Amino acid sequence: MELKRVVLKRYPEGTLQKEDMEIISEPLPELAADQVLLQVEHLSIDAFIRTTFNQGAFHGTADLNQPIVALGIGRVVDSRFDGLNQGDAVFGPMGAQTHAVLPGAMLQKVDESNLPARAHLGVLGVTTGLTAYSGVVRVGQVQPGDTVVVSAAAGAVGSCACQIAKNCGARVIGIAGGAEKCRFLIDEIGCDEAIDYKNESVSDRLAELVPDGLDVFFDNVGGEVLDAALLNLKEGARVVICGAISQYERSGDVKGPINYLKIPERNASMLGYTVFRFAEEYDQIREALEDWVLSGQLKLPEQIEQGIDSFPDALIKLFTGGHKGKLLVAP
Amino acid sequence: MELKRVVLKRYPEGTLQKEDMEIISEPLPELAADQVLLQVEHLSIDAFIRTTFNQGAFHGTADLNQPIVALGIGRVVDSRFDGLNQGDAVFGPMGAQTHAVLPGAMLQKVDESNLPARAHLGVLGVTTGLTAYSGVVRVGQVQPGDTVVVSAAAGAVGSCACQIAKNCGARVIGIAGGAEKCRFLIDEIGCDEAIDYKNESVSDRLAELVPDGLDVFFDNVGGEVLDAALLNLKEGARVVICGAISQYERSGDVKGPINYLKIPERNASMLGYTVFRFAEEYDQIREALEDWVLSGQLKLPEQIEQGIDSFPDALIKLFTGGHKGKLLVAP
Repeated sequence: MELKRVVLKRYPEGTLQKEDMEIISEPLPELAADQVLLQVEHLSIDAFIRTTFNQGAFHGTADLNQPIVALGIGRVVDSRFDGLNQGDAVFGPMGAQTHAVLPGAMLQKVDESNLPARAHLGVLGVTTGLTAYSGVVRVGQVQPGDTVVVSAAAGAVGSCACQIAKNCGARVIGIAGGAEKCRFLIDEIGCDEAIDYKNESVSDRLAELVPDGLDVFFDNVGGEVLDAALLNLKEGARVVICGAISQYERSGDVKGPINYLKIPERNASMLGYTVFRFAEEYDQIREALEDWVLSGQLKLPEQIEQGIDSFPDALIKLFTGGHKGKLLVAP
Repeated sequence: MELKRVVLKRYPEGTLQKEDMEIISEPLPELAADQVLLQVEHLSIDAFIRTTFNQGAFHGTADLNQPIVALGIGRVVDSRFDGLNQGDAVFGPMGAQTHAVLPGAMLQKVDESNLPARAHLGVLGVTTGLTAYSGVVRVGQVQPGDTVVVSAAAGAVGSCACQIAKNCGARVIGIAGGAEKCRFLIDEIGCDEAIDYKNESVSDRLAELVPDGLDVFFDNVGGEVLDAALLNLKEGARVVICGAISQYERSGDVKGPINYLKIPERNASMLGYTVFRFAEEYDQIREALEDWVLSGQLKLPEQIEQGIDSFPDALIKLFTGGHKGKLLVAP
C-alpha cells in the first residue's frame, strides 16, 4: 500500500509557485511499537507553513524532499499505542500526506460528540480559533464599547477574531480584499463595517469610520494595512500583532511599519504573541469557543479542497486571497 | 532695548543646516497686564525642536520667521503678574531668544535651594529626567535583575535612563557612538557594558553580552539600532519607544523596524509613551530624582554653549552626536 505526500522541491524565492512543491508516492512504512497508522482526513492550510520555507524560520526551516508540515485530523487505521484505537479521530502534525505513521504520544484524541473532528483545525484549532481568542481576549483585552479593527478579516483567524470581538461587546470593522469578501464580513461574520483594501484607502476609511481612533487593531497582514491602522490609533490603543501574511514571502526584505512612531505619540502599544503562550489555557478557551459555536455566536465557514493533489494550490491560495473562512484540504 | 532670537528661515530638507535658521534682533515688547519680562538663562536643546520643522509634526509645525520653540529657564526682570517677582527663576516655553515676554500663567517658579535652576531642564526636566524615569520605571517597569539596553545612552535622556535602570537593580548596557562616549558610559554613568555602534555590530555584541536576550530596550534612536535590539529579545521583553533621533530628519521616509515580527515571536511588546501621560506624577517623580541626585546616585554632566548665536550649531550637534550628557545654550 502506498501513501501520497507533498514535498518541498526547492526553496521558493518570493511568491510561492506550484513548481516549488512536488507530489510523490511512497510505500507505507511499517508500524513500530507505540506508533499509529492514520488516514489523514483534513489538513489545515495555515500561513505558518509558508514561513517554514524561509531560512531562519521561527517554526523551523523545512528540509527539501520531506513532507511539508501541516496540522491535521487523522483517523486511526491501525494502532500499536495504548489509548488509541481504530476509528478514533486524532489531531496532530500530520504533514501534507494521505497517511501518516506517528508516535501515539504526538497525537491528541478529539471529541466528535458536538462538532465534527475538523473543528479542531478551525474554530477550536490552535492555529485558528485559539489564536484568535488569545489575541482578542487575552492580549488585546477587548472591552465592551471598544472599536476593534481586524485585518485579513475574511480569513480563518480574522473571521473568528471579528466574532469573538463582537461577543466581547466591541464594535468591529473588518478589512478584506474585494466586494464579495466585504459582503461576507457584514452578512455572515457580523462585522459592523467592512473596508475593501483593494478598492478603498484603508487609512481614509478608518478616519471616516473611527474619527476618534481605534482601540484595538488585530493584525494578520502587516505592510501597508498595518501602516494605515497606525495612523488611526486612539490614545492608549493596543496593536495586537498576530501575523503578517503580506510579509512572509519577503524573507530578508520585510517592510517594517513606517508609522511606528504613532505608537509613542498615542501612548499606544504593539503587543506580540504566539498562541503557545496560552497553552495552559487551551482547554478553558476551547470550552468558551465551543459554547459560542453551539449557541450560534461563532461560526467559521469552511472551504474544503478535495485530494492531496490540491494541497499546493490551496497553500498558494492562502496568499492570493482566493478563499473565505477556513481553508482545508481533504486528502 | 533689544532682544536676539533664532528664527526658522526655511524648512530643512533632510539634514538640518545652519542656513535653515537665522539670528535676528527685535525691540523688546512692552509688558502687558499679567505678563513677565524674562532674561533667558538657559535653553534646553531637545530633539523635539527638530521635529517641529517637519510638516504634520506631533508637537505642531513651526512657523517661518518666528522664534524656534525651546524650553528654558528665565530670570524675572520685570513682572506684572502676581506671584512672580524680580529675581525669581522660572521654567517655561522661552523660545530660542535672549529675552522673553510671557504670560505669568505659562511659567513655573523653580526652587533653587538644592540644585541650580537649570536642573529643571536636565535631571529634573520634563524632556530629560522625567522622560527617562517615566520610560524606565513606569512604562518599562524595570525590575531588579533585568538586563536593560539603552540607545543614545550618552545623550541626556539616555544617561539618565541608564542610571535610573541601575538604581532599579538592573544590569545596564549602553549603546553610543565612539570610544570616548563608551568610556563615558562606563566611567561616569556607571553602565555595566557599552557598545560602540560606530565600530561594532550592535546585534553581534548584544548576542555576546546577553545570550539569553534583553528584558528591556529603551530606545531613543530607531532605525538600525532598534532592528539590532529586536534580534535580541528575551521571551516577554519590553521595547520602550521613547524617541527615534535617527528618523526625525527623514520626514516622509521613516524606516520602520524590519525585525518587528520578533515582537510576536518573543511574546514581546513595543510600548510607546509621551512624558505628558505622567503629568500628574511629575512632582512625585521629581522628588525621587532629586533624592538620587543629592545622594549621588544620579548625575547628568552638562555641556553649556555660550551665547544665543551658538543655538543653531547646538541644535545641529544634537543630531551629529557631538556632545555628551545634557546640551544647553546660555543665551
